[in-house]
Amino acid sequence: MKVNGQHHRAITGDPATGEVRYIDQTRLPHEFAIKTARNMPELAEAIRAMAVRGAPLIGVTAAFGIALALGEDASDAALDSARSTLLATRPTAVNLAWALKRICEYSQRFPEAERAAAAWAEAQRIADEDVAINHAIGRHTLPLIQELAEGKHGAPVNILTHCNAGWIATVDWGTALSGLYQAHDANIRIHVWVDETRPRKQGLLTAWELRQHGVPHTVIADNAGGHLMQHGRVDMVIVGADRVTGQGDVCNKIGTYLKALAAYDNRVPFYAAVPSPTIDLSIGDALREIEIEERSADELRHVRGLDSSGRPTSIQILPDVSPAANPGFDVTPARLVTGIITEKGIAAPRELARLLQV
Amino acid sequence: MKVNGQHHRAITGDPATGEVRYIDQTRLPHEFAIKTARNMPELAEAIRAMAVRGAPLIGVTAAFGIALALGEDASDAALDSARSTLLATRPTAVNLAWALKRICEYSQRFPEAERAAAAWAEAQRIADEDVAINHAIGRHTLPLIQELAEGKHGAPVNILTHCNAGWIATVDWGTALSGLYQAHDANIRIHVWVDETRPRKQGLLTAWELRQHGVPHTVIADNAGGHLMQHGRVDMVIVGADRVTGQGDVCNKIGTYLKALAAYDNRVPFYAAVPSPTIDLSIGDALREIEIEERSADELRHVRGLDSSGRPTSIQILPDVSPAANPGFDVTPARLVTGIITEKGIAAPRELARLLQV
Repeated sequence: MKVNGQHHRAITGDPATGEVRYIDQTRLPHEFAIKTARNMPELAEAIRAMAVRGAPLIGVTAAFGIALALGEDASDAALDSARSTLLATRPTAVNLAWALKRICEYSQRFPEAERAAAAWAEAQRIADEDVAINHAIGRHTLPLIQELAEGKHGAPVNILTHCNAGWIATVDWGTALSGLYQAHDANIRIHVWVDETRPRKQGLLTAWELRQHGVPHTVIADNAGGHLMQHGRVDMVIVGADRVTGQGDVCNKIGTYLKALAAYDNRVPFYAAVPSPTIDLSIGDALREIEIEERSADELRHVRGLDSSGRPTSIQILPDVSPAANPGFDVTPARLVTGIITEKGIAAPRELARLLQV
Repeated sequence: MKVNGQHHRAITGDPATGEVRYIDQTRLPHEFAIKTARNMPELAEAIRAMAVRGAPLIGVTAAFGIALALGEDASDAALDSARSTLLATRPTAVNLAWALKRICEYSQRFPEAERAAAAWAEAQRIADEDVAINHAIGRHTLPLIQELAEGKHGAPVNILTHCNAGWIATVDWGTALSGLYQAHDANIRIHVWVDETRPRKQGLLTAWELRQHGVPHTVIADNAGGHLMQHGRVDMVIVGADRVTGQGDVCNKIGTYLKALAAYDNRVPFYAAVPSPTIDLSIGDALREIEIEERSADELRHVRGLDSSGRPTSIQILPDVSPAANPGFDVTPARLVTGIITEKGIAAPRELARLLQV
């Protein structure tokens, strides 16, 4: 999508120069900085430090990391070592393991002399496929927005989103936001309510994205969405997801469940937009079986931003002596979910298994 | 309640010196500072800047403001002017208007020469009544906690609260927290989940209060409560309120409605604890008729805390160019409310009118 009027992907790789360029997301929303990695450890560190974040983007980044590693040493031992290093950066991210498995198995089919080139090509394919999947998710989202727009008689369609499921969490387009960009580009009037998403405030990344692409939006506290829905100021809720069960239960950023409850209570449609591999058919009881990551309480205690001179800084808002807890995700039961949007189309939770068989 | 082992009220007035002392809540949780106001505009500014906050405390502060104003000019015109100034500081809480009406009508019964003394006495009575009311609210809350404790077989009763309805939101004891303090003092094991309450983070005040008094608690992001309830980790939700209708609709800090939805969805009892004057029988349709204060978007953009040297500072987390909205309150419909706790007892929403006739 666009940044300062120019098209960007969240990550690009160039086999000719052996360089991988990515947006340093730790500096957003205050500064747009593109960093260049020339070796695998630099990319591993980018994932670890959350300079790149978002499950799909992490997977693609790791794939480029393998390409860089094989450029230096294409032996099996070097490949295994690079894979272990990259896998350890964010051990809970499913896409990371998936992308590493794919690119490593593919590269190993080639003799050592050809492995680096093969890995570059495969990493590029994974990136391009991610773009295609996300574009397709948006294509399926678009008619939902179009239909809402028809009922609004020229007033904007108000869409609420939680966390960041935008293009910088992927290579391009995003999941939840893909359809919103496509609606905006098709001159459908939309306005996005952006949940701040404490404690890590990923909503500020969403606001940055939307602003750069010119999509009207308003940032709100996580507490505000229910009130807005009660007053008819939200026409649709759309979020991404970290895992969706075959029954349509949605595991996503902590707080999603509260918004789904409010949407249900106010008859506002609630959608989760995900690439189909995010749907995990192995899960029966989402509430019991999905392990919810308990993150550091320091994410509640410290807040990053700019000081009065515009320098990035961190302040402490809650004293260390105050106990705090920080569960990272929650589960929205399928009964609150209007539909799951994938690259294959949209399904109500109970139709999801059928959609995946297409 | 106690601060550093010593008993304090949130506000005290001394007619002999013409001074009103209050805890500067903008400096909590990092610093405990008592400020002195010597004229009405200082107190109006304290309310406006939320150095004093919480519906009951605002009412008492405004009453002391009238006493200070009448000390300078006891004419009807001066009284009207002071009343208007104080009334304009915060629009949503009913206590402000109630306290101003009471003290103004009372003072006007006296000749000008006696008005200031009358107002000081009446302000003191309002403060003392607030303490008595809040203690009674806690007395009625206590059996609810006792009953839950019996089902826990020695494990703590987990109580979730939103915002700060503690003693510093009143003169003493608090509304929602009064019963929790009384339970703790009665050696009932409790543990309090404290919602951070963005954007103004009043949960950090609640955590400070609870810590000073030794009540076990854990601060969580506003996003986390629903998840905790899904996993059986909340036995009861109790909040204060800025206004309750005769039908039992609860207008309270933004985000309360989301917690009430989650409580209802997980069969967790949800209570609002309020002094009976907070119940506004003039409201028919709470969603339409209660004006919701739209606060400055800067409350979302800037966050206050301590820098690395421990100095109070403010950082910017959201650029000025990003639009933001900041509604201050929401309405929880009576159908989600288990009971309203007042100084007169507890009533289910539909029994509320009967309770008030006692």
